[in-house]
Amino acid sequence: MKGNCIVAQSGGPTAAINTSLCGVYLEMSGSSDVGKVFGGINGIQGILEDRLLDLGPILSDKRNVDILRQTPSSSLGSCRFKLGKPEDKPELYKKAFEIFKKHDIKYFFYIGGNDSMDTIHSLSMYAKAEGHDIRFMGVPKTVDNDLVKIDHAPGYGSCAKFVSTIVMETAQDNSVYDMESVFIIEAMGRDAGWIAISAALARERDGAPVADLIYTPETTFNVDKYLSDISDLRQKKRFMLVVVSEGLRDSNDVYLADTGEVDAFNHKRLGGAGSVLAEITRGNLDIKVRSVELSLLQRSASHITSATDIAESEKLGKLAARGALDGMTHKMPILTRVSDEPYEVEYSYADVSEIANAVKKVPDDFINSQRNHATEKAIKYMRPIIAGETTCIMENNLPVFINLASIYRKSV
Amino acid sequence: MKGNCIVAQSGGPTAAINTSLCGVYLEMSGSSDVGKVFGGINGIQGILEDRLLDLGPILSDKRNVDILRQTPSSSLGSCRFKLGKPEDKPELYKKAFEIFKKHDIKYFFYIGGNDSMDTIHSLSMYAKAEGHDIRFMGVPKTVDNDLVKIDHAPGYGSCAKFVSTIVMETAQDNSVYDMESVFIIEAMGRDAGWIAISAALARERDGAPVADLIYTPETTFNVDKYLSDISDLRQKKRFMLVVVSEGLRDSNDVYLADTGEVDAFNHKRLGGAGSVLAEITRGNLDIKVRSVELSLLQRSASHITSATDIAESEKLGKLAARGALDGMTHKMPILTRVSDEPYEVEYSYADVSEIANAVKKVPDDFINSQRNHATEKAIKYMRPIIAGETTCIMENNLPVFINLASIYRKSV
Repeated sequence: MKGNCIVAQSGGPTAAINTSLCGVYLEMSGSSDVGKVFGGINGIQGILEDRLLDLGPILSDKRNVDILRQTPSSSLGSCRFKLGKPEDKPELYKKAFEIFKKHDIKYFFYIGGNDSMDTIHSLSMYAKAEGHDIRFMGVPKTVDNDLVKIDHAPGYGSCAKFVSTIVMETAQDNSVYDMESVFIIEAMGRDAGWIAISAALARERDGAPVADLIYTPETTFNVDKYLSDISDLRQKKRFMLVVVSEGLRDSNDVYLADTGEVDAFNHKRLGGAGSVLAEITRGNLDIKVRSVELSLLQRSASHITSATDIAESEKLGKLAARGALDGMTHKMPILTRVSDEPYEVEYSYADVSEIANAVKKVPDDFINSQRNHATEKAIKYMRPIIAGETTCIMENNLPVFINLASIYRKSV
Repeated sequence: MKGNCIVAQSGGPTAAINTSLCGVYLEMSGSSDVGKVFGGINGIQGILEDRLLDLGPILSDKRNVDILRQTPSSSLGSCRFKLGKPEDKPELYKKAFEIFKKHDIKYFFYIGGNDSMDTIHSLSMYAKAEGHDIRFMGVPKTVDNDLVKIDHAPGYGSCAKFVSTIVMETAQDNSVYDMESVFIIEAMGRDAGWIAISAALARERDGAPVADLIYTPETTFNVDKYLSDISDLRQKKRFMLVVVSEGLRDSNDVYLADTGEVDAFNHKRLGGAGSVLAEITRGNLDIKVRSVELSLLQRSASHITSATDIAESEKLGKLAARGALDGMTHKMPILTRVSDEPYEVEYSYADVSEIANAVKKVPDDFINSQRNHATEKAIKYMRPIIAGETTCIMENNLPVFINLASIYRKSV
């Protein structure tokens, strides 16, 4: 089917999302069926405003593709825009398909998470109902690793590699003075603790875990149990490292961070679960405590990505494109684990409606019986995903990036 | 002079301090004058308790030296112990020299900053006065880069590389949504802004700075001026990145972080200058704000070090050892800048009394006239220090470290 193509990015960024963009671009631009490959700026929100960037003139330069591959965050910009149902927002759908028609769009790719797959679902259902011959494909990504149907989400492996490396490094620093100390690391994860449990990958040379305690949103957080865990630990060691997800909640389903804000800080905003937990620890135990929130670093640290994640992310982008060129619509490429050791995955496709809006939490058998660490099964699952190192193209001793959204803004 | 040797580490750790330890060990263990090379655990504090680890059995394995070289933080442990003057604490000096005698110590190396050089000064003065034939040498390190007499301090270059890389990466993330946003990064630096100004190395491909505003303790921090800087910036761009030193102080010499705690948070502890500034920004401007404190990450990120820094750190360790073997005492090896481009330094020695307790602030001509960014002169100074990449020995897809203090603790 001859025509042009739009590829866009949505939701929270990752260090690998642009690699998927490279995959889509390379496969589509290599097809004689495809005219122009447009980047949609700021996802569907920008597309509805006709903000499109012709990627050909930029990415026909192979060096720019290589630079895009190592650029963290969504180079095309992103959005958190909910398209809604056609029956609720008919004007948005009408507008979108006018823009598709204007640019002779026959292929549409949306790189994103479960919300983005809902957008693909709605657009492709609408196209079918209205008789528009456009193929809509999803491309998976999310540091949160909470997509169903896929063994693991692109972007997660690189995030997990950064987090587990930081755990290894800061544990050295936390043990440097001859005094008891607790270091608390707060990872992203509002509903699922995938990023926090990746800290379990960090191991001493004798195999002992470097992170002593890991708490995730899958388990109701109990302050007394936490203080008891720390007290037990103090009997055995002087330097303690705790990793928490931002989304820890108590038995009333109130966020730990929220509780701290309301009770102790007169509704003022705090940094998050980590700093609240640091306050609690200081307030209850006579011990030195520091906390750090990994913030944007954990999803944009492109200087330390997993080669496996980067390769898989690009391949999934290519497969989405290949599928569309072969006639698919309403699909997202997925990978299924065949074996942990040696690591092997199989690629196939799933219906986006199976992925849209669903959340994959950390399964029970990945969390230990004390609900404060990961199991060996979780380690076996995570370890191959962080495998392999990547190198960066550098200029002036720093990595060099390409921001396509910024190029677009300067061009208009 | 035949005898044994002690090497120890003191003060805040860096990602390069163990490289200097490798330098001292390799040079000393290679001399026929030297019997055992002991590591002092937790600096002078542990040495006074006779906590010594014979490094030979461990570091005669070359792989362990390579692993030590890439291990962040002080592998021997550190301390913030002030030895004081011999006239004030004669018992400590007596104790120290008893331990030196017990182990036939003839060479003593202390890797540290300006406080540590004071320790070396005091010990060597005492030895001279009491007729002890022991050579005391300092080896420089500090992420803070505040040592006088030396062009730049080992450890700073790696920290600056991490910080400027993180600025490059998080700026991508901060610009991802189509809404105005300010991202505030808090770097270490209580009295000197060296780490914060390293953010100025991060550049767009057109040479424009990625960090829009940089505030350091060298300038009195004025909230109105800051809000005016941000307001000016908003006229030109939507995504703003601000870097601050932890030690920002107002015209009453009160820490910005302290002010926030007392005024708004009922004496509760906050994360630091960055989070206080985020509160101020949110409270005064209708704009999305996030802040992150780089915390221990900035001084322990051994996965991204400067090859120049690592090589210089090891060389300075070796030169300290070489100097002692050649008869020096009361000295610290230094490097002097010969040329920025091509980068060239000369090595020599300085008296530790010239370095002890002195602080090198960021000079005026490294800070712009608006006092909110670095000058081109600062860039020229910093750029060669972050040059070159290093690679890590990995096990299970993560870096592998060696903690000598932990080995000692398990051995006793």
